[in-house]
Amino acid sequence: MSYRHVVQYYETDAMGITHHSNYIRFMEEARVAYLNEHELPYAAMEQAGIISPVVDVNAKYLTPSSFGDALIIEVQPIEITAVRFRFAYTMKNEATGALVCQGETTHCFLKKDSAFPLALKRECPDFYERFCALISPKQ
Amino acid sequence: MSYRHVVQYYETDAMGITHHSNYIRFMEEARVAYLNEHELPYAAMEQAGIISPVVDVNAKYLTPSSFGDALIIEVQPIEITAVRFRFAYTMKNEATGALVCQGETTHCFLKKDSAFPLALKRECPDFYERFCALISPKQ
Amino acid sequence: MSYRHVVQYYETDAMGITHHSNYIRFMEEARVAYLNEHELPYAAMEQAGIISPVVDVNAKYLTPSSFGDALIIEVQPIEITAVRFRFAYTMKNEATGALVCQGETTHCFLKKDSAFPLALKRECPDFYERFCALISPKQ
Amino acid sequence: MSYRHVVQYYETDAMGITHHSNYIRFMEEARVAYLNEHELPYAAMEQAGIISPVVDVNAKYLTPSSFGDALIIEVQPIEITAVRFRFAYTMKNEATGALVCQGETTHCFLKKDSAFPLALKRECPDFYERFCALISPKQ
Repeated sequence: MSYRHVVQYYETDAMGITHHSNYIRFMEEARVAYLNEHELPYAAMEQAGIISPVVDVNAKYLTPSSFGDALIIEVQPIEITAVRFRFAYTMKNEATGALVCQGETTHCFLKKDSAFPLALKRECPDFYERFCALISPKQ
Repeated sequence: MSYRHVVQYYETDAMGITHHSNYIRFMEEARVAYLNEHELPYAAMEQAGIISPVVDVNAKYLTPSSFGDALIIEVQPIEITAVRFRFAYTMKNEATGALVCQGETTHCFLKKDSAFPLALKRECPDFYERFCALISPKQ
Repeated sequence: MSYRHVVQYYETDAMGITHHSNYIRFMEEARVAYLNEHELPYAAMEQAGIISPVVDVNAKYLTPSSFGDALIIEVQPIEITAVRFRFAYTMKNEATGALVCQGETTHCFLKKDSAFPLALKRECPDFYERFCALISPKQ
Repeated sequence: MSYRHVVQYYETDAMGITHHSNYIRFMEEARVAYLNEHELPYAAMEQAGIISPVVDVNAKYLTPSSFGDALIIEVQPIEITAVRFRFAYTMKNEATGALVCQGETTHCFLKKDSAFPLALKRECPDFYERFCALISPKQ
């Protein structure tokens, strides 16, 4: 799946480019869109009492982007286990094709009310199956 | 009370100045500090089941500020009633004395759980008294 | 013109709703889209040496929005003069039709290099004509 | 050096905790304060025509923080070369001592006007010496 984000003026900084912290937000945007598209919407997970906070993030900034640039963000699940999942992101400038940013995020599963770890496989097998399907061969 | 905020790089935009949306955030920062100092901490109000969302905001931008500038923010309560309060803000550049931004925010009181309006005077008379004291003559 | 913004997780706050400062940013997003559509792109104005900072903003918050909500933002020019312009915004929840936020922004014209006021009508008559057309009867 | 950041309401999200993207901004805040204190102010570097964009960032989130929490951020330079520098950050909750976030950022040096790489050692030996002093034994 690819997600499109157009850089807003409020996302730029005094260097005239997109502030580096915003790419972490673009990853979230693209991840949410990806999960929605794969029947794993955040809202449904939260209703089922599951939250999945970020436990690790990294980003490499390769080419700056700036106001008005359209970024095409590819989301790729790279690891799904009973207790966490890991996604990779590649962002390209739509107009130039330049590689703008590459990154990864890792997430755990917690119970919404207690913030205790949640064993997705045992406690929410339905969501677990859908997560596993993201990296199964037929995908 | 005056609150000091130093403009961060991530708060600037491609014009090289503080993005105008951030002053709305600086008002919140200064308001929280003001309420803490006057025995009306947000955290205590939330624990008592009170939230006070913003229902109206306005800002006039008079002189730009930029990265590294220290802003001195004066907070002034201008109206307190049983159902809402209104604060005014004046932001000056610490180094030059220039008037940077002036604004106001209006807030209502809601019950945290139901998001229904809360009659502060009747339901939380203690907080109501403290709010009223903010604009009493002895202040 | 109407612009669509889907509320992101990073735009929510601990009350579980869209933080009020973000609506100021949504106004900018919608304004940029509006100007692009009416042959007044920010980028072209900046290349012509024109910047148009916000000098005044106000917003009324009527119904909260939260993560995943689609907002439909109507942009309406309400005043265009040789030295400034003023836009109004109305944001509705796409799913419920509820009025979420109403606001206005006022902008002046400055020379990009000097930050001195720019008399748009005399110095950039082409852009001035296009601005005037935004509120002419035939629109 | 340690830098103190108090989490603002606008930095929280609907999970009731500090949104993970904001820690990347706190790193910048702490880095700017650290460089100011070591005679390497951003403003002076920009005046000398040097910018130092982030080329790589990573963060591990260990304990959530939330509205009102004071974070104590330790900044540690871990690599300085003629073409780049690398800093590590450790953020603790001031009240509980809990380790909240650990991260690193890597920066290159560019010429402000051209955005071409800048050989700091040859072109700005004064700044280069000061950077090297950050990790010299006597520190």
